[in-house]
Amino acid sequence: MIPHSHISEVPVTAAVITVSTTRTKAQDTSGSKIRDLLAEKGITVGWYAVIPDDISSIRSALAEALLTCNCVILNGGTGITHDDCTIEAVEPLFSKRLDGFGEIFRMKSYADIGTRTVLSRALAGIIDKKAVFCIPGSTGAVTLAVSEIIIPEIRHILTHAER
Amino acid sequence: MIPHSHISEVPVTAAVITVSTTRTKAQDTSGSKIRDLLAEKGITVGWYAVIPDDISSIRSALAEALLTCNCVILNGGTGITHDDCTIEAVEPLFSKRLDGFGEIFRMKSYADIGTRTVLSRALAGIIDKKAVFCIPGSTGAVTLAVSEIIIPEIRHILTHAER
Amino acid sequence: MIPHSHISEVPVTAAVITVSTTRTKAQDTSGSKIRDLLAEKGITVGWYAVIPDDISSIRSALAEALLTCNCVILNGGTGITHDDCTIEAVEPLFSKRLDGFGEIFRMKSYADIGTRTVLSRALAGIIDKKAVFCIPGSTGAVTLAVSEIIIPEIRHILTHAER
Amino acid sequence: MIPHSHISEVPVTAAVITVSTTRTKAQDTSGSKIRDLLAEKGITVGWYAVIPDDISSIRSALAEALLTCNCVILNGGTGITHDDCTIEAVEPLFSKRLDGFGEIFRMKSYADIGTRTVLSRALAGIIDKKAVFCIPGSTGAVTLAVSEIIIPEIRHILTHAER
Amino acid sequence: MIPHSHISEVPVTAAVITVSTTRTKAQDTSGSKIRDLLAEKGITVGWYAVIPDDISSIRSALAEALLTCNCVILNGGTGITHDDCTIEAVEPLFSKRLDGFGEIFRMKSYADIGTRTVLSRALAGIIDKKAVFCIPGSTGAVTLAVSEIIIPEIRHILTHAER
Amino acid sequence: MIPHSHISEVPVTAAVITVSTTRTKAQDTSGSKIRDLLAEKGITVGWYAVIPDDISSIRSALAEALLTCNCVILNGGTGITHDDCTIEAVEPLFSKRLDGFGEIFRMKSYADIGTRTVLSRALAGIIDKKAVFCIPGSTGAVTLAVSEIIIPEIRHILTHAER
Repeated sequence: MIPHSHISEVPVTAAVITVSTTRTKAQDTSGSKIRDLLAEKGITVGWYAVIPDDISSIRSALAEALLTCNCVILNGGTGITHDDCTIEAVEPLFSKRLDGFGEIFRMKSYADIGTRTVLSRALAGIIDKKAVFCIPGSTGAVTLAVSEIIIPEIRHILTHAER
Repeated sequence: MIPHSHISEVPVTAAVITVSTTRTKAQDTSGSKIRDLLAEKGITVGWYAVIPDDISSIRSALAEALLTCNCVILNGGTGITHDDCTIEAVEPLFSKRLDGFGEIFRMKSYADIGTRTVLSRALAGIIDKKAVFCIPGSTGAVTLAVSEIIIPEIRHILTHAER
Repeated sequence: MIPHSHISEVPVTAAVITVSTTRTKAQDTSGSKIRDLLAEKGITVGWYAVIPDDISSIRSALAEALLTCNCVILNGGTGITHDDCTIEAVEPLFSKRLDGFGEIFRMKSYADIGTRTVLSRALAGIIDKKAVFCIPGSTGAVTLAVSEIIIPEIRHILTHAER
Repeated sequence: MIPHSHISEVPVTAAVITVSTTRTKAQDTSGSKIRDLLAEKGITVGWYAVIPDDISSIRSALAEALLTCNCVILNGGTGITHDDCTIEAVEPLFSKRLDGFGEIFRMKSYADIGTRTVLSRALAGIIDKKAVFCIPGSTGAVTLAVSEIIIPEIRHILTHAER
Repeated sequence: MIPHSHISEVPVTAAVITVSTTRTKAQDTSGSKIRDLLAEKGITVGWYAVIPDDISSIRSALAEALLTCNCVILNGGTGITHDDCTIEAVEPLFSKRLDGFGEIFRMKSYADIGTRTVLSRALAGIIDKKAVFCIPGSTGAVTLAVSEIIIPEIRHILTHAER
Repeated sequence: MIPHSHISEVPVTAAVITVSTTRTKAQDTSGSKIRDLLAEKGITVGWYAVIPDDISSIRSALAEALLTCNCVILNGGTGITHDDCTIEAVEPLFSKRLDGFGEIFRMKSYADIGTRTVLSRALAGIIDKKAVFCIPGSTGAVTLAVSEIIIPEIRHILTHAER
């Protein structure tokens, strides 16, 4: 068992990666929302980028973010249009998949938007003892995922993953 | 963002494939139920077949259905008996898996039949920009899946998948 | 359809495998809890072991258990620490995965422990017509999984899997 | 052991599928070559098509061919250009992969064209007890694969696969 | 670099597992041949069994063999008949696959039996720092694999795998 | 068909990544050999690093190299010791695998070092229309792979991959 005092002390450095071919940083409402939510809880954002919807750009940004951050939140590109490829880029890199993250996200999202949530392919996993989350790029989705799941659990996840 | 008026205009042509080694079309209660539910909502069924539980028959029927239909509903063969192979036949063909479909189906099914739902391997995904659903072949299961998830979301799914 | 009278007669022989590098049998609270829960419902435990957290030990114990038991319950090693490898050991061996088991476990667990449940990688599947469950090694988790899902459904699962 | 007399009697019905977005049947030199080579050895070609380079067209043609043929030869689309997707379409469908087919093809091809053969992703496997071969669409490649490997071994392969 | 003197001292304990539903130990010509070849080179055979062609029996025998042996040679069940499942049982257990073993086996086998070798799915890999080989169950195949590849390389393989 | 004149004009920018936990650049004999061999043939090396044997460092270096180079040669970490993880890091990233590269490498290497080559897990594939090669880190291996396969074929590979 890990004592609670220990968990609350785990340092978290977050990276926010917005996957969008059309947005600039100035237009990145969802990325901005994530950064605000993290800042409110005293979590440092050590890396931020808006990158296009292609597998190489996503993997390259993720690789760079993982050099200095232990919690990477990618938003956008998780849907089912032809261009959406965040899941395709990230999933093969997981050493451990956290199926529960997508399930709980969709269970909670169902309460808000009903069966529409079946279109979301939200997903999380562990890469090199660090936590990586892929979430939809709407303001509602990032608020739900970050406030209700990621922030409450990130220290617990990292305490385990880093052992 | 896709305007709602656009979504409601997406044309849907459904295929219904009942996977059963023992049934004839005359005895195909679940397939008949699906067709009735779709017809009530004005969705055309462009293709219908009852086929045996083997991987080649399932893939061949699915390939033929996808030539003219953009929403294929396979029912039956999703359980765990030795003969059940609908999931095995269809899952490798998905370009994108919709994990949320199976989850929301089982979450709703849990309300009806409790933990019995763990035996269902319901699953959905995208093949060639078209939606494919695999659901259990009982009347209860097809009613839940078709009325409560597929019909409400199919136009939204296709609007995204076809982009 | 399988008549209910037939289902209730399916013989179940369970194996309990506790995955823990630090526990002895005397300290194995969760394994002991599982055995008590099964005994209360008249299910024979034909095989029991406490084994260390490594892939070979887990697969070796599982292989031995499957020679005489048709319901294997592994507990422990399902988290995300570096040492946790029960899922890694067992998942590649499944001929059919029961996604619903992990989902319903986490949905129920969410009611108890909230979003903390995203750390659980509980999972079940079929190996050689037998049922195999991987669940967390806490007393709460094993009680939930065994009392509320495994015991109520095991005969139904085996009736299908053994056909 | 299977007696040789039995092997020589195995009926073979071949399908030839040429994967090319630009060719017509009249221009299909490699497909025509395969059909001639098979005909010379008395092997019936029961199905023939020229289809475009996309995963759905390939899987649909393959599914149809497998309904009546037990030896399917796809040629073309096995390289590494962006459009080449024959391997991507077919490989996930194999129940058993025959690694040796690609290896022996490239070993022999190396004698003809040297290291250039590393660009070929020739591959074979079993789908539903039938043999499926994916080979490059040049006349040299189809002649090598069909005359030197497929024709000499097809009856032996089917004798085993059909048991 | 590992000095040669060190390599020649690596202790090897072999297991021989013959996969055959019809043979007894008395009729096990290929298993007997393997044991003789190993004995001639002073390699101890610490475990020997003839087991039926099913995934559970194979995995269970393999798990038991790996408790005391660091070189396991399975022979039989590597072909493409419906019953052949040695590859299916063993491949998912590999932590590292040695593609070169099957390639060199088939390259050498080609010199003996020509293109017939494409039917062999011979394969090797590492499980828990130990070497596991799957080879066809004919006397010719086991002689080639054991004399010409396994015996010459086993100490080198184990020196690396055990580090 | 692609005219030969076009192939010889394809620009190649190479990256050399040596995977070794113990070497410095000054001690990097194999990386230095690769750079010399490329320079002799007028191929620019646009990126060079010596990095430790861990999956994150390898993926991060590869992602960075792919931003500016279209031919990445990783050497070292392809064996079977516990630390070797170059294949594990790179293989999941391939959009197309070139099985023939490893096969031809081992076929040629067999002529030099005999069956010892079965220990090499050399591998190549395409990532984002660029070529990536993983080869052993010995001087002999890099000389063989680079002089006899990569240099002769790289322009041909890129001509196809970039289309």
